[in-house]
Amino acid sequence: MHDGNTSSHDADTLRGPHGRLAGLVLSGALMLASAAATAWDGQVEKQVFEMPAYTTTGGESIGPVRIGWEAYGTLNEAKDNAILITHFFSGTSHAAGRYAEDDPAPGYWDAIIGPGKPLDTDEYYIIASDTLVNLNAHDPNVTTTGPATPRPDTGEPWGTDFPVVTIRDFVEVQKALLESQGIERLHAVMGASMGALQAYEWASAYPDRVERLIPVIGAGAADPWLLATLSAWAAPIRLDANWNDGDYYDGEPPLDGLRESLKLVTLNANHWQWANATFDRSWADAEADPARHLEARYAIERTLDDIAASRAEVADANHLLYLVKANQAFLAGHGDSVEEGLARIDAPTLMLYSENDLVFAPESVRATAEMIEADGTPVERVTLEGNRGHLDGVVAIQQAEARIRDFLAK
Amino acid sequence: MHDGNTSSHDADTLRGPHGRLAGLVLSGALMLASAAATAWDGQVEKQVFEMPAYTTTGGESIGPVRIGWEAYGTLNEAKDNAILITHFFSGTSHAAGRYAEDDPAPGYWDAIIGPGKPLDTDEYYIIASDTLVNLNAHDPNVTTTGPATPRPDTGEPWGTDFPVVTIRDFVEVQKALLESQGIERLHAVMGASMGALQAYEWASAYPDRVERLIPVIGAGAADPWLLATLSAWAAPIRLDANWNDGDYYDGEPPLDGLRESLKLVTLNANHWQWANATFDRSWADAEADPARHLEARYAIERTLDDIAASRAEVADANHLLYLVKANQAFLAGHGDSVEEGLARIDAPTLMLYSENDLVFAPESVRATAEMIEADGTPVERVTLEGNRGHLDGVVAIQQAEARIRDFLAK
Repeated sequence: MHDGNTSSHDADTLRGPHGRLAGLVLSGALMLASAAATAWDGQVEKQVFEMPAYTTTGGESIGPVRIGWEAYGTLNEAKDNAILITHFFSGTSHAAGRYAEDDPAPGYWDAIIGPGKPLDTDEYYIIASDTLVNLNAHDPNVTTTGPATPRPDTGEPWGTDFPVVTIRDFVEVQKALLESQGIERLHAVMGASMGALQAYEWASAYPDRVERLIPVIGAGAADPWLLATLSAWAAPIRLDANWNDGDYYDGEPPLDGLRESLKLVTLNANHWQWANATFDRSWADAEADPARHLEARYAIERTLDDIAASRAEVADANHLLYLVKANQAFLAGHGDSVEEGLARIDAPTLMLYSENDLVFAPESVRATAEMIEADGTPVERVTLEGNRGHLDGVVAIQQAEARIRDFLAK
Repeated sequence: MHDGNTSSHDADTLRGPHGRLAGLVLSGALMLASAAATAWDGQVEKQVFEMPAYTTTGGESIGPVRIGWEAYGTLNEAKDNAILITHFFSGTSHAAGRYAEDDPAPGYWDAIIGPGKPLDTDEYYIIASDTLVNLNAHDPNVTTTGPATPRPDTGEPWGTDFPVVTIRDFVEVQKALLESQGIERLHAVMGASMGALQAYEWASAYPDRVERLIPVIGAGAADPWLLATLSAWAAPIRLDANWNDGDYYDGEPPLDGLRESLKLVTLNANHWQWANATFDRSWADAEADPARHLEARYAIERTLDDIAASRAEVADANHLLYLVKANQAFLAGHGDSVEEGLARIDAPTLMLYSENDLVFAPESVRATAEMIEADGTPVERVTLEGNRGHLDGVVAIQQAEARIRDFLAK
């Protein structure tokens, strides 16, 4: 207990400016136009990789697996210039560039991927793939395999008969993708949030294949706080009667529940600094005072509802539940001990995180760094600044560009 | 952006000790036995105050209003030794003592209320009342008026025909209660969280009746972050088909949704430091690996589910929705300007809050202090330490006992 401090900018918080909402939706957050390309021109072609059969780490056969992927830059003859980008919970393999010139926004890390950028497409071959059970199963630019995929034996969607899959499964499928292109070693693996989990898993499972590790806003295991947070994300879907224990592909999908889940994801991935700087106490509808009408909302509620509704259009509720499971189950190395799993990492590590992260507790991220470096593996730590909390690892990554560039050149 | 720091205790976070769960449920959190009483012996009798008619600040008549109240200590002849305690969102008027000797736990602030304690029952008359639309409408020790109350005209519960009420309405009913006992001035008003909102409102609406103000873990208005957080708390109830637009009193109540709402309340009111110190990655059922079975849970999920289920037994879903509205609508002074509302406060203020609060952003609490003291009203700020985040204002209040004692004696 001690006397509280006051800083002069605090007084703006309750007043709140009228909100600028630009940058709120992830896909719209990166406003930087791609630099004029010298080699890679920023046009992206989505491609599909297929494995004829796959057996999960849990021993379940899921038949053919198809996942989408895209690449920026050119694989060199030695096939030793590849950098793998692994995506976050609600993300896809669209890390950079545009599918068409008039796309409203480029991929989520376009700020650092491209000609002359830290992940320099003149030098590196950057490849990103959709995970199994990708959230955006109904996005035409996403290819994934999960509960919404038809079973090979019946032709009907798997639903909850699809086996629970893990971050290690995501990595195994990516490994097969890379091998199909003759890539045996990665110059680096880099990912944010759930992408960081995949990056840790890569470096722990295949230490001889990963030369550099860049985990962003993620820890070496799902800590109890994250277990509970993910549990809360799953709950609204299960409350929606249309979920029907996961059997909804012949009827109405549980869109109300899915929207509330995605609303909670958006809120938790942000921070009060962002909420209070972006919004004020305005009503959603100037005619409907929320203090007088039970159904009336504030502007921030409407915006979060609208974002969630937009995201829900291409998302699948069961896929969200499976992603929750995969993230909860994560323990680097897929064994019983996070220390042992992280000790297997030999790749020099550049760890980027936010002290304002409300999803991955910063103390768990720092503990991860300690466990990796316990046996002498070098770990550089960089804290990201901003008012977006967890999301600063996605929308504010550019601040770390010099550190990333230097690390990749070592 | 700067280099991240490491501290040696971080490494314990991911390992996590096996969880001690004592202290988790609010009502069980205060393990301190009452000191032997010299005057007040710690036995509490719940009483009921009734107003024959009440018209809300929004102009709606809700007929007779009944609320529960309890008191500790003795009102002096001058009737100038009263301290009003206002309760938090999921709380009741049971702030101290026990209804029966074998009650498992005393009221929530028993650590600071009693003979010789900072809120000294040998000196002060401490009174606490249930609010309108109290969450725990079905708790036999709670009396409240809200959607679950029969309408005077039909005898059927109001449901969502009950008018939206505000923190000012809570204050108006408390004022009538105090006047019924001849109390015209308060030595102090003190409350945590939603209780702090009522305390601010008291001091702003009736500056000549409040001699001292002790707001704990609360700000002078619901900031946009809180608007969104409260919105998330309401969502699970609305997703439960049994909610039926609030018309469920003849059928099955929306218990699934209510439980998920209360789970989210519990999680948000805590902090990752608590989650990660109290739990590990244990499974809820040693035979059911959550990484293999979609329905299997981790221990932290089970505990949060169990707490929520227990609280839901005496709670009412519509009351939770009305509390969400009352908290969202809060702006000290019930006008259009939080600065003006807070400027009306003349009472010297002792503000207690946590820098780890995930519900009331600390920057908004600090801004509140600045607005109160802008015209010269003295404000003392005390930050509460602990690993419970918001809840440190309830379960760890004892650390501030010397400051509270001194402030009340000034």
